[in-house]
Amino acid sequence: MTRRVAGPEIERLIQLLAKLPGLGPRSARRAALHLIKRKDQIMAPLSAAIADALDKVVVCTNCGNVDTTDPCTICRDTRRDRSVICVVEEVGDLWALERSGAITGQYHVTGGTLSALEGVGPEDLNISSLVERARAADVVEVLLALNATVDGQTTAHYITDRLAGCDVEVSRLAHGVPVGGELDYLDDGTLAAAVKARRPF
Amino acid sequence: MTRRVAGPEIERLIQLLAKLPGLGPRSARRAALHLIKRKDQIMAPLSAAIADALDKVVVCTNCGNVDTTDPCTICRDTRRDRSVICVVEEVGDLWALERSGAITGQYHVTGGTLSALEGVGPEDLNISSLVERARAADVVEVLLALNATVDGQTTAHYITDRLAGCDVEVSRLAHGVPVGGELDYLDDGTLAAAVKARRPF
Repeated sequence: MTRRVAGPEIERLIQLLAKLPGLGPRSARRAALHLIKRKDQIMAPLSAAIADALDKVVVCTNCGNVDTTDPCTICRDTRRDRSVICVVEEVGDLWALERSGAITGQYHVTGGTLSALEGVGPEDLNISSLVERARAADVVEVLLALNATVDGQTTAHYITDRLAGCDVEVSRLAHGVPVGGELDYLDDGTLAAAVKARRPF
Repeated sequence: MTRRVAGPEIERLIQLLAKLPGLGPRSARRAALHLIKRKDQIMAPLSAAIADALDKVVVCTNCGNVDTTDPCTICRDTRRDRSVICVVEEVGDLWALERSGAITGQYHVTGGTLSALEGVGPEDLNISSLVERARAADVVEVLLALNATVDGQTTAHYITDRLAGCDVEVSRLAHGVPVGGELDYLDDGTLAAAVKARRPF
């Protein structure tokens, strides 16, 4: 038996918080209580921040990034390298690469991977718009930074085929030992790839 | 080096989400993206729910519970047993007991435990108001449902002393093996308590 422990407004808040990734029903209750206890320090600013983001966040029509402007900050930045387009599955991947500081070029978010099982075909992803962008004269390289999963690699092969007509070099991320990783904990596939791609020391 | 990956509105949302218990910087980013991707299904309702709760949530002046009315739903419920007051540290404990359905009486939230280390004295907790409530003629029992920690038990002893003048029976929760628990994983103190408090089968 579950009794309602608080007013419907609090129950509704808990239900919605429980839909966030990383929060289950129990931690959503804790989060709700945390908010309620710190009304002025966290709850009011969070309420304003969500309303603000809700109002302003848009998807970049050029690359698929989310930002508060369209085109996004990255697409508008004239100091960035126009010759490289880095292709990622999701905006989270774009953020991760951007934090690493390793990409100085543009991005393109496909919005997922091809998946026969889940019925995701090429028309469900932002691939045609990528081919169009790759046709631009200043684009020299398309770097496929898709996940190293079966679906990610299938999508990488499909995109490579689609880019055949464009005058661009297609590259992919290197496989190997993660920085700071211990060999003992790595899977055979990664170790084999790291050995195969060994570099002079 | 951390580069700003999105507009300031999104960064602010991530920062505030990271302050929720259970969410770190990484999962806060995931949660923010999840919200942005599901603007209509989750972000808009959550925004409304937080604003609504912010507006309506109050602390019950009688027992210390949080609700949208003062006195709270539990204090106003005339069908509940007026003879028992169950004392808890935090509202989360009240919710947990209420979900169990085992308490049919009233509650009293102390707002924490006495702690010499953290400088929490009796005047920082809702103990005087408890003593006042316990003096009412219809109160027969005060059940101390404080955590089985050193601070919780210190507070329980202190409250028992303070209630000496009132005509109430003071009880505490039973110690023992958790339902579904395996003996092998239990600490010695719990096992000893469970053996000492053994019951005829």
